Amino acid sequence: MNRRERGSPGTVSVLPLDGIPELRKDDDLGHELYEAAVRAGGLEQGDVVVVAQKAVSKVEGRVVRLADVEPSPRARELAGPDGDPRQLEAILRETLRVVRSRPPLVIAETRHGFVCASAGVDASNAPEGSLVLLPLDPDASAARLRERLVGLAGVDVGVIVSDSFGRAWRQGTTDVALGTAGIAPLRDLRGTVDAAGHELRTTQIAVADEIAGAAELVLGKASAIPAAIVRGVDVRGDGSARELVMPRERDLFR
Amino acid sequence: MNRRERGSPGTVSVLPLDGIPELRKDDDLGHELYEAAVRAGGLEQGDVVVVAQKAVSKVEGRVVRLADVEPSPRARELAGPDGDPRQLEAILRETLRVVRSRPPLVIAETRHGFVCASAGVDASNAPEGSLVLLPLDPDASAARLRERLVGLAGVDVGVIVSDSFGRAWRQGTTDVALGTAGIAPLRDLRGTVDAAGHELRTTQIAVADEIAGAAELVLGKASAIPAAIVRGVDVRGDGSARELVMPRERDLFR
Repeated sequence: MNRRERGSPGTVSVLPLDGIPELRKDDDLGHELYEAAVRAGGLEQGDVVVVAQKAVSKVEGRVVRLADVEPSPRARELAGPDGDPRQLEAILRETLRVVRSRPPLVIAETRHGFVCASAGVDASNAPEGSLVLLPLDPDASAARLRERLVGLAGVDVGVIVSDSFGRAWRQGTTDVALGTAGIAPLRDLRGTVDAAGHELRTTQIAVADEIAGAAELVLGKASAIPAAIVRGVDVRGDGSARELVMPRERDLFR
Repeated sequence: MNRRERGSPGTVSVLPLDGIPELRKDDDLGHELYEAAVRAGGLEQGDVVVVAQKAVSKVEGRVVRLADVEPSPRARELAGPDGDPRQLEAILRETLRVVRSRPPLVIAETRHGFVCASAGVDASNAPEGSLVLLPLDPDASAARLRERLVGLAGVDVGVIVSDSFGRAWRQGTTDVALGTAGIAPLRDLRGTVDAAGHELRTTQIAVADEIAGAAELVLGKASAIPAAIVRGVDVRGDGSARELVMPRERDLFR
């Protein structure tokens, strides 16, 4: 008996999707992802395709030119001596509420309800002199990509639009799910019983965030790999990434 | 040419380590992990073995019996009408500082500097009438397991001791690294250049937390799979999981 094969049934695999060209507004990202998946061996039923927010935002035209941004007095204040007031203005336009600031750093709550640095506005991997904004509706972005992928591949897959977020209390970013389609982002263990026979009363696992983080392991910010397939996790469902946002009334830290 | 093989070089795999018996104080967890890894096909150079904190705490005797805990007035207050004052007392004994409380829920800073629910004290998957505490020094726990695994397997591997933590602003837990050995927990991209030629100035990726989260995808709280191998991520180094704790002076949320 091949011992290696015995471990296979429960194995999760994360496959990088590379060879995707630099993306521009209105490019067919779904088709690019499909072609890359074919190069990686093809999509399988139940796969989750994780795609970096920046790739999605670019094809959706969610890019602003710094030269077109007129900073407000508030933006100049938040920029401090080291920041670019135009960048802070672009951040403020994406911001529902400033949660913390230490010029030029801003932690903001976005209109989606995400709490993250710079309201998700980012200059890295952006066209020269430009900033990339978060998608307006990341669940809808994920749903459009999923529809295209399912149409091309003929198998049912889930899609996650991911981004790198900082965390309170911990150093470093981890990738999380901003938008989802075809998956249940939370695994609810409430009511199930642990190995010792005790009921698990409060546990919900943010499985979509863990899948996004697992995908990040093969993405790499400095290389041009904007997407990955995560295979072997059964998360099929029809939830929304909004479920991952802590409701204001339950949030002890907003 | 086999297309599937082309995708393999950059692939990350997560293999569950099952068949590990219920653990007790002074059990040889390193040997159990080694045997489980052999059943999964064997350890390879550069593998990261992720093991749930609860398994580590049990063999280290970090278990308290509720019957042995005398609650203080403060514990009774934090328990409220719905909590067990003895459980809150056990939590307070692990707590450096209560960050937030809404009886019987406590978010605490542990002596390690971790900010998490109940100071990591947990009744699920614990022996009847008992609570499991976090290891006293999770880096040291990881180092001991690594030494044992390297000695048995004859290949260099990293070890992460993981636990499920809630997050500010987001629903659900994700697994993070409490202790590490043989790996660099943060991937520092500061000074590297992105695909568009811009220097990445602030990016540090909490790769150990992403690996812990990826492992969680095959662990499952309700089943008895306390560990996994994550293969294909090059994180060799000699860092400490303390690097993942935001220093107090930089923390906007402590």
